[in-house]
Amino acid sequence: MRKVFQAELHQIGEDLIEISQLVSEAIQKANSAFQGADTELAEEVIAADARIDFLQNNLDERAIDILALQGPVASDLRMIVGALRMSASLERMGDLARHVAQLARLRYPAHVIPAAIRPTFDELASLDMKIAVKVTELLETRNLELANDISAHNARVNELHAGVFKSVAAADWNESAPTTVDVTLASRYFERFADHGVSVARKVTYLVTGEWQPSAPLT
Amino acid sequence: MRKVFQAELHQIGEDLIEISQLVSEAIQKANSAFQGADTELAEEVIAADARIDFLQNNLDERAIDILALQGPVASDLRMIVGALRMSASLERMGDLARHVAQLARLRYPAHVIPAAIRPTFDELASLDMKIAVKVTELLETRNLELANDISAHNARVNELHAGVFKSVAAADWNESAPTTVDVTLASRYFERFADHGVSVARKVTYLVTGEWQPSAPLT
Repeated sequence: MRKVFQAELHQIGEDLIEISQLVSEAIQKANSAFQGADTELAEEVIAADARIDFLQNNLDERAIDILALQGPVASDLRMIVGALRMSASLERMGDLARHVAQLARLRYPAHVIPAAIRPTFDELASLDMKIAVKVTELLETRNLELANDISAHNARVNELHAGVFKSVAAADWNESAPTTVDVTLASRYFERFADHGVSVARKVTYLVTGEWQPSAPLT
Repeated sequence: MRKVFQAELHQIGEDLIEISQLVSEAIQKANSAFQGADTELAEEVIAADARIDFLQNNLDERAIDILALQGPVASDLRMIVGALRMSASLERMGDLARHVAQLARLRYPAHVIPAAIRPTFDELASLDMKIAVKVTELLETRNLELANDISAHNARVNELHAGVFKSVAAADWNESAPTTVDVTLASRYFERFADHGVSVARKVTYLVTGEWQPSAPLT
C-alpha cells in the first residue's frame, strides 16, 4: 500500500513537470508566432492548450483521490496541496501563452507590436521563456537557486511592464488605439505569466524548506 | 472529535462567506471611487485588500490542518478542497477590485473613463457588483439558481468587454493613448472579476450536485 502511495505521489510530481514542459513549449512558440507574425505557429499553441487543461484536470482528480484514499499527512500532504496549487498556476500560464498566440493570429499578417517598442517585448518574451524553463528545472531538481533566478527575472519583467506604459504615455507615441490596446494586453499577459512562475517557485520553496513566505500582492 | 471536526468545517464555510462579503464591499466601493473619481474611497479599498489576503491565508492554513489532522473523505473532503480553490478565486477578485481602485487613484481628480464610453463601464460595474452579491448569497444558501444568474451576468460582461474593444477601434475614438490603456485595463479587470465569480459558482455547484463541469477556457 505504502509503495503504491509513493508511486502515486511520484507520478503527481512527474505530471507537474510534464505540464510545465508543455507550458514552456507554449510560451516559446507563442513568442515566435508573436515576433514573426506566424499564424500557423499561433494555431499550434492555441490547439495545444487543451492538452494542458486536460492534464491539469487529470492531475487534480488524482490528487484529490490520494487525499481521499490515503489520508496523507506532513510533507506528503503538503506536496499534494502544493501540486493542486501549482497545477492551477501552470494551467493559467498556458492560458496566457495562448492569449499571446491569439493576439498574433488576430493581427496576422501584421505584427502586434510596433517596431519602436519591439526590443522591450523581445526582452519580456525572453524573460518569460527563461522563467518557464527554470520552473520546469526547479520542479525536476528542487534547486532553490532557480527560485531566486525566477524571482529576479520577474522583477525585471515588472520594470519592463511599467516601461511599456511610459512609452505609451510619451509624446512621440503615435500608434492607433487598437495597437495601444494590443500593446497593453500583451504586456499584461507577459507580466502575469512571470508572476505565476514566481508563484510556482514559491510553492516549491515551501515544499523544500517548510517555510511559507506569504505571497506579495499579485498585480 | 467528530463534533469538533464539524464545527471546523462549518467555520471554513463561514469564513468563505466573510471573505466574499469583503470582496463584495470592495468592488462596490471600487466602483464608486472609479465612477466618482473619489480618491479617499479608492484608498479604503486598497487598504482593505490586505484583510482579504490575511483571511485567505488563514483559511487555507486551517483547511490544510483539517486535511492533516482529520483525514476527511467524501463530501467533507470535497468541501475542503473546494474551499481552498474558492478562497483563491475570492482573493483574486479582491485584487481586481483593488486594481480598479488604483486606476481611480492614479487618475484623480480626472475620471478614468471618457464620458462617451461610461455607460458601458457603468453596466460592467453593476454586473460585477451583482455577481459579487450573488456569490455571497450562493455560499450562504447553496441555491443553484444563483449560479445560473452569475453565469448569465458573466455572459453579458463578456459581450460588454468585447464591445469596449470595438469602441476603441472605431473611427470616432479620439482619446489619448494613456486613456486607451486605462480603458483596456479596466475592462479586463471587470471581465476577470466576473470570470472568477463564475469559477466560485461552479465550485459550489459541484459541492451541491457532485457533478463537475470542467471549466470553459478562462480568458
